[in-house]
Amino acid sequence: MATFPFPALVGQDEMKLAILAAAVDPRIGGVLVFGDRGTGKSTAVRGLAALLPPMAVVEGCRFHCDPAGPAHACPDCDALRAVGKAAAVRKVPVPVVDLPLGATEDRIVGALDLERALAHGQKVFEPGLLARAHRGFLYIDEVNLLEDHLVDLLIDVAASGENVVEREGLSVRHPARFVLVGSGNPEEGELRPQLLDRFGLSVEVRTPEDLPTRVEVVKRREAFERDPEAFAAQWKREEGRLRRTLVAARARLETVAVSDEVRGLAAQLCKSLGTDGLRGDLTLVRAARAVAALEGDEAVAAGHLRRVAAPALRHRLRRNPLDDAGSSVRVDRAIAELMGA
Amino acid sequence: MATFPFPALVGQDEMKLAILAAAVDPRIGGVLVFGDRGTGKSTAVRGLAALLPPMAVVEGCRFHCDPAGPAHACPDCDALRAVGKAAAVRKVPVPVVDLPLGATEDRIVGALDLERALAHGQKVFEPGLLARAHRGFLYIDEVNLLEDHLVDLLIDVAASGENVVEREGLSVRHPARFVLVGSGNPEEGELRPQLLDRFGLSVEVRTPEDLPTRVEVVKRREAFERDPEAFAAQWKREEGRLRRTLVAARARLETVAVSDEVRGLAAQLCKSLGTDGLRGDLTLVRAARAVAALEGDEAVAAGHLRRVAAPALRHRLRRNPLDDAGSSVRVDRAIAELMGA
Amino acid sequence: MATFPFPALVGQDEMKLAILAAAVDPRIGGVLVFGDRGTGKSTAVRGLAALLPPMAVVEGCRFHCDPAGPAHACPDCDALRAVGKAAAVRKVPVPVVDLPLGATEDRIVGALDLERALAHGQKVFEPGLLARAHRGFLYIDEVNLLEDHLVDLLIDVAASGENVVEREGLSVRHPARFVLVGSGNPEEGELRPQLLDRFGLSVEVRTPEDLPTRVEVVKRREAFERDPEAFAAQWKREEGRLRRTLVAARARLETVAVSDEVRGLAAQLCKSLGTDGLRGDLTLVRAARAVAALEGDEAVAAGHLRRVAAPALRHRLRRNPLDDAGSSVRVDRAIAELMGA
Amino acid sequence: MATFPFPALVGQDEMKLAILAAAVDPRIGGVLVFGDRGTGKSTAVRGLAALLPPMAVVEGCRFHCDPAGPAHACPDCDALRAVGKAAAVRKVPVPVVDLPLGATEDRIVGALDLERALAHGQKVFEPGLLARAHRGFLYIDEVNLLEDHLVDLLIDVAASGENVVEREGLSVRHPARFVLVGSGNPEEGELRPQLLDRFGLSVEVRTPEDLPTRVEVVKRREAFERDPEAFAAQWKREEGRLRRTLVAARARLETVAVSDEVRGLAAQLCKSLGTDGLRGDLTLVRAARAVAALEGDEAVAAGHLRRVAAPALRHRLRRNPLDDAGSSVRVDRAIAELMGA
Amino acid sequence: MATFPFPALVGQDEMKLAILAAAVDPRIGGVLVFGDRGTGKSTAVRGLAALLPPMAVVEGCRFHCDPAGPAHACPDCDALRAVGKAAAVRKVPVPVVDLPLGATEDRIVGALDLERALAHGQKVFEPGLLARAHRGFLYIDEVNLLEDHLVDLLIDVAASGENVVEREGLSVRHPARFVLVGSGNPEEGELRPQLLDRFGLSVEVRTPEDLPTRVEVVKRREAFERDPEAFAAQWKREEGRLRRTLVAARARLETVAVSDEVRGLAAQLCKSLGTDGLRGDLTLVRAARAVAALEGDEAVAAGHLRRVAAPALRHRLRRNPLDDAGSSVRVDRAIAELMGA
Amino acid sequence: MATFPFPALVGQDEMKLAILAAAVDPRIGGVLVFGDRGTGKSTAVRGLAALLPPMAVVEGCRFHCDPAGPAHACPDCDALRAVGKAAAVRKVPVPVVDLPLGATEDRIVGALDLERALAHGQKVFEPGLLARAHRGFLYIDEVNLLEDHLVDLLIDVAASGENVVEREGLSVRHPARFVLVGSGNPEEGELRPQLLDRFGLSVEVRTPEDLPTRVEVVKRREAFERDPEAFAAQWKREEGRLRRTLVAARARLETVAVSDEVRGLAAQLCKSLGTDGLRGDLTLVRAARAVAALEGDEAVAAGHLRRVAAPALRHRLRRNPLDDAGSSVRVDRAIAELMGA
Repeated sequence: MATFPFPALVGQDEMKLAILAAAVDPRIGGVLVFGDRGTGKSTAVRGLAALLPPMAVVEGCRFHCDPAGPAHACPDCDALRAVGKAAAVRKVPVPVVDLPLGATEDRIVGALDLERALAHGQKVFEPGLLARAHRGFLYIDEVNLLEDHLVDLLIDVAASGENVVEREGLSVRHPARFVLVGSGNPEEGELRPQLLDRFGLSVEVRTPEDLPTRVEVVKRREAFERDPEAFAAQWKREEGRLRRTLVAARARLETVAVSDEVRGLAAQLCKSLGTDGLRGDLTLVRAARAVAALEGDEAVAAGHLRRVAAPALRHRLRRNPLDDAGSSVRVDRAIAELMGA
Repeated sequence: MATFPFPALVGQDEMKLAILAAAVDPRIGGVLVFGDRGTGKSTAVRGLAALLPPMAVVEGCRFHCDPAGPAHACPDCDALRAVGKAAAVRKVPVPVVDLPLGATEDRIVGALDLERALAHGQKVFEPGLLARAHRGFLYIDEVNLLEDHLVDLLIDVAASGENVVEREGLSVRHPARFVLVGSGNPEEGELRPQLLDRFGLSVEVRTPEDLPTRVEVVKRREAFERDPEAFAAQWKREEGRLRRTLVAARARLETVAVSDEVRGLAAQLCKSLGTDGLRGDLTLVRAARAVAALEGDEAVAAGHLRRVAAPALRHRLRRNPLDDAGSSVRVDRAIAELMGA
Repeated sequence: MATFPFPALVGQDEMKLAILAAAVDPRIGGVLVFGDRGTGKSTAVRGLAALLPPMAVVEGCRFHCDPAGPAHACPDCDALRAVGKAAAVRKVPVPVVDLPLGATEDRIVGALDLERALAHGQKVFEPGLLARAHRGFLYIDEVNLLEDHLVDLLIDVAASGENVVEREGLSVRHPARFVLVGSGNPEEGELRPQLLDRFGLSVEVRTPEDLPTRVEVVKRREAFERDPEAFAAQWKREEGRLRRTLVAARARLETVAVSDEVRGLAAQLCKSLGTDGLRGDLTLVRAARAVAALEGDEAVAAGHLRRVAAPALRHRLRRNPLDDAGSSVRVDRAIAELMGA
Repeated sequence: MATFPFPALVGQDEMKLAILAAAVDPRIGGVLVFGDRGTGKSTAVRGLAALLPPMAVVEGCRFHCDPAGPAHACPDCDALRAVGKAAAVRKVPVPVVDLPLGATEDRIVGALDLERALAHGQKVFEPGLLARAHRGFLYIDEVNLLEDHLVDLLIDVAASGENVVEREGLSVRHPARFVLVGSGNPEEGELRPQLLDRFGLSVEVRTPEDLPTRVEVVKRREAFERDPEAFAAQWKREEGRLRRTLVAARARLETVAVSDEVRGLAAQLCKSLGTDGLRGDLTLVRAARAVAALEGDEAVAAGHLRRVAAPALRHRLRRNPLDDAGSSVRVDRAIAELMGA
Repeated sequence: MATFPFPALVGQDEMKLAILAAAVDPRIGGVLVFGDRGTGKSTAVRGLAALLPPMAVVEGCRFHCDPAGPAHACPDCDALRAVGKAAAVRKVPVPVVDLPLGATEDRIVGALDLERALAHGQKVFEPGLLARAHRGFLYIDEVNLLEDHLVDLLIDVAASGENVVEREGLSVRHPARFVLVGSGNPEEGELRPQLLDRFGLSVEVRTPEDLPTRVEVVKRREAFERDPEAFAAQWKREEGRLRRTLVAARARLETVAVSDEVRGLAAQLCKSLGTDGLRGDLTLVRAARAVAALEGDEAVAAGHLRRVAAPALRHRLRRNPLDDAGSSVRVDRAIAELMGA
Repeated sequence: MATFPFPALVGQDEMKLAILAAAVDPRIGGVLVFGDRGTGKSTAVRGLAALLPPMAVVEGCRFHCDPAGPAHACPDCDALRAVGKAAAVRKVPVPVVDLPLGATEDRIVGALDLERALAHGQKVFEPGLLARAHRGFLYIDEVNLLEDHLVDLLIDVAASGENVVEREGLSVRHPARFVLVGSGNPEEGELRPQLLDRFGLSVEVRTPEDLPTRVEVVKRREAFERDPEAFAAQWKREEGRLRRTLVAARARLETVAVSDEVRGLAAQLCKSLGTDGLRGDLTLVRAARAVAALEGDEAVAAGHLRRVAAPALRHRLRRNPLDDAGSSVRVDRAIAELMGA
């Protein structure tokens, strides 16, 4: 299937910024998108991945390891090295893996290859969806409806960058670094606070209210469906520009400076909001740095913090019984108090 | 079993129009039929399918792919191409697949062919009901009693047109485009709003109140049961006329124009009803276009919108605590305000 | 075990009429018998079946197909025809199949023949209880205690006359036309309205109140148990008479006329009772015709309708909060209003 | 283990009479013993069985069929006859089968013999506990704690005298006639009325209140445990006397006359108590006849009815909201009204 | 692991007396220890078993049968006898079996030996924990958390002294006589009265309140852990004395006289407390006799009854809504009324 | 993955002291860490283990037994000895085993090696995570979300130092001594008191409130992630110092004296707090001794008790309805009363 071009998405700027930031620095952690139905969540993820340059992988490695990555990362690379093979390299598109409904735990984490076990008596690991998502995106629609233990597992792997499998007599570990994107509808059940906190950023999307926007969305959608190639051609240049920005941001990321003043501001913001633990502080600084990198700035400034504060913190607030304002409002208020409106 | 002729169905015009529209443009999405028992829901679907012209399929392809369709659509066509075979073509009736009670997930999505796995140690995919429904209809009686995860799965496949199987060590994807028709009785449990929204159209059927209609329904039913062939013969001409209309509408569909004014009207209607997301806007325009195509019109007009507004929107309204009118009434009221009664 | 003669049953006329009518025209659908324990429900079904003349079946067909029936009815007949065999015919008693407690779904619908699958690697269908009940009776005691999905399944097959099996890689369909008789005790849980509606007729049985009847019942039961053969001999003539009546009624059924006036009366009765859908109308007319056939009449009259109105409609009434009379009373009242007491 | 002699049981006359009556005429149906813990319920059943004369069985028949019984009773006897073998006869004690806690349905009804299925590819039935109990007693402690579907199954088999197995591709029926004795404690959950009604007799046992009785019970128990043989010797004569009474009663049973007057009295009693259905009438007459046979009488008299009325009817009363007397009291009152105190 | 010496246990006299009595006469039934955590329950059982003299067992019998016991006790002894082998004898320590958390029913009761079944097609019984506990102790920590059906099963076997296995096509019975010791904490869920009644004795343990005792407990524990051998040596003599007392008590048990007066006193006590059934009477007398035997007395006296009355009866009282005193207080009061304070 | 150096952890002194004490004397039992998310719990455990000197293990023993440990400790060492092999020795790092989400009971306790069972018909034990954690640490994140029976099992093994496996026909025991560290968030469900009591120490961690600390934590974390090697080099000396302290404390532990006065003080503290049983007394003394050993003191003093009183006792308090102060406050108050503030 052809992919809807990322830049052709109308509006939803907060969601787009969050996904871009996570693509620049995957250590920011997953992105949670909550909100109305039919607002382009899945389309955005797919569009962004299509935009990224293809990645180099070790030929013959089922985990598509980075040829420039650390040694001993996965069983396949180890096996290749053991037979003295120099790793051949090939290029593949950045993967976007959909967690299909009804996927079982063994297909997610990988499992014993039954075919070879039965036919040859060999205990071989068959990689699962986590392996397939390595170095790309894992998209879960309606994450709030997924069974808790699967969400736990996915977040755990996303956080550690490693999939540890202990089952059916197998004991395997392989790299599994990906940007987890979960979408859901708050009307249908919430995530436990413990899980919320594990997502790096959280954004809200809403149905656009103004008519021209709505008409534009529908028109682009129909144009795309009528003739995907023609539509894609129209957006090619825009995509090229965004791709170059992303690649540059990734290259520049580590050189973006963070002053103690900015860190202090981040800590103060988290403290005044009473976020739990220090993941808020860490994410806020990281996300701000990714945004600075995207915008070509050499140091993180208060303005960068301000732009990512809501996505980085709104899902980490404890419920305050004396303050019935929504999370976003409370974050905005705290920013205003600290930095002025 | 012989099929009751579609045109011989008495009344239930909204249901018939919705199914016809979905047959003209399957991208409209599934049709949900809620209402009284014994009102011909299943009969209508079966009748419509029997009316459609037989479809051309690739000989030897278990997914009955369209010979004129895109390459690499399914594993079978890929395998045929791999051995350099030109695809032979044959004609088959449009399938109507009934989801039998107690069908398991593996029969629905397909599964490992155990026989060949055990006998030959081969891991071969055995297509399921979704494959069988490709390019036809999938009918689910009492959809509101089906387990949630199966409904999710069916709607998901219906929406994407593709069945992605990740289980038992299999990793298969094949096309599965069909019109999903679900029927149910609201007295026996509702669908979650998230699922409702995924159905393109929703219609209500009611037991006819006037005696002559009731007597006519019973008489036709009995005549059909006594001698199906004779009964079918009586309705042959009527069926031919409807078949030609359908075929023409499908051919003409893409050429039916939609003005910005009409789109604006659709968006305004959705906005004033507060539907969630933009699926309402999209479906409303699509369904109106299908109706225009059925009626031989060259452009969508307000009148077309008006006729499909209730089926396209009534299941997408949020419950409004200050307005206890039913969904249909609220849609009608919104239409009246926008377009005049 | 010897069978208690049908005519030796004391009282319970409504139940006996309903079962007879269903035996004359199985399209009436199942019979539901609700009421006191120990009132001869199972005995009646068994007695009626013993009374029916033996039926001709295709030799070697595990579904005991009718040699005079349509071609391609079942896999066995197809296989016989494929090898060019002329179907030999033999006579067997009309089957009465008891759904034993704890019967699993695979024994009911049939399943993969594991023995042959394991020993010979062949995937062969092993027919279940539904196949065995074909052309006879399926009796379920305490149907209200059966799991919902099994009741659904049974009614579905009874209605369509066909058993569609989609499981374990099997995909089989074979004819399964039978009269479903379910008994139960309303004190132990009700059937869902959706299921109730699928039964054609519903009767109530009660413990007889007058002493001579009670003594007579006990005496006949004891006489039968002491010497079944002697008891059967006493009722032989009575049985012969009833058998001839039944056979004649079946032969005459299609020729019994139904006037529009009678149909209108039926529709009016259903409408004034507010039955849901048109299954009530259909069943009422069919059952009246079966009774007319049993009684040797050439056309259905109001009196026939009146006699089957309660069994055909009482389980299809919606609960009316303003009318707390029982269903039977409401049906009687509606009849009285329409036809006079 | 040695068996405590039946006549050495102190008190509990109602329970002893009920078990004796059921041993004389098993068609009376099971006996339900409710009451205090540690009151000799299991001991009584075991003692009675030990008292019965050994029974003649067909050698090589796993269902220990009666050589004098009907032909074609079980698969083993059929197989023996098929090879033209004359049935050898041997004597075995009357079985008492305990339903052990945790017994699974397949051990109760019998199942596929896995060993032979796996080793030889043969589908052979392995008889279960129901087969083992044939012609003896099946004792279930804490019947009110058994899962409902197992109780259903046991009562069903006890009533029909036949075990019908439809599972795992097996389709077997064999005789299974036994006296079902269930004990339980009403504090721990009741049986459903539907099940209660299926038990023929129901008795209550209570902890004796007077000290000499209590001391006597404990002394006899200790004497038995210290030296079972010596204790048994003391009661040998008493056992012989009771055994002869039982054997005579069984022989005489069919000749005991029941007048219409007695039947009428029974029916009147049931009617005035409002028992559901006619199982009460039947059981009352049967139990009275068994008692008459035990006592050497030639006809059933009102006095016999009176003695078994409470056990035969107390568990069949509907709850009467206007009469909060216990069941036993209501039965006694009805007897007094009909027959005088 | 070394065992903490029984006599080194500080305090908890009621618990120690109950376990000793049960070791003298296992027919008393299990001991239930309820109370605070960390009060030496498991240590006491283990210590007592270590103290008992080793027992003689039949060489090659997996159920360690007593060479002096009855013939045909177990399948292994039967097999040995069948090949004409004289049973060799060896000595083993008295077993203490811990029910490990997560033990499955098949490991408890024994199961089919899968290895031999698969490799050799033989159906061999593999004994479980009940077999291993034969003639020793079975200790269950947190018995109130065990699943009900497992507790039922354990008590049932403990009461009958026999393990009857009916599963997986096996039908085995072997002796399983052991003292069941269950511990638990009443805060975490109670046992059903039915189960409580099946335990012979019930004791309560509490955390000691006085400081020197607490310090002594901790010091002994630490001394034991630092150097188990040295600690054991200190208590060797004390252990020897207690062992001789136990052996003598077992030998003398059957000769200890019980007068009718003492039995009457026991019955009166049970009656005035309203215990359910006669298990209380039986246990009270048995436990008093065991204590008399331990103390070298020739007859049971009122004083012996008094000492075991609370452990034998407190768990058999019905809840008395008019008397909210605890069970122990009610037993003490009844004793005082009958025998004087 | 590189390990974050233990001394580089900012703050959280109580948690660090508790883990150090448990590392000095594993008999103290597990450590429970409750509190805010993202506060370095897992990092601390991993850092401490990395700091410990490598341990000597028996070559070829899958349980990495201590060559200086007792004979017959595990099946592998037994097997090695049986073939007369002298145990070769090698050094391995102290293990830290993470309980991955979704680990099944068989991977935790070990299980039948299916590969060898199927291929060679041998029943071989395949060690699980408990074996792997032997002599190291077992870390469970979100222990309060783990299923109760798994927590039970883990604590049980941790307490006994032995893993007893009774399943699948296996009966294996091997040493499994480890420090169990469980973390969790009290907002997400509490542990049962019975389980709480089994943990030796319990600490609470909180998000630091002062800004410089927060900034420091984030800076160190980022520095570590940017260049783990460089960061580790900075902390090498500090780690060396702590490692020497730990090794010395372990060596000195048994020689640290505990006076009766100190024991009495511990007992008094426990008594005044009303802790249940004597595990509190034992743990308090042990933990105080471990701290004394860490600090190079020759005897336990009141000050040592005071420092570990809260971690040793706060999770053992019964809820006091008249005192709604938190556990920590109640412990502090009791200390102040006994020892002065």
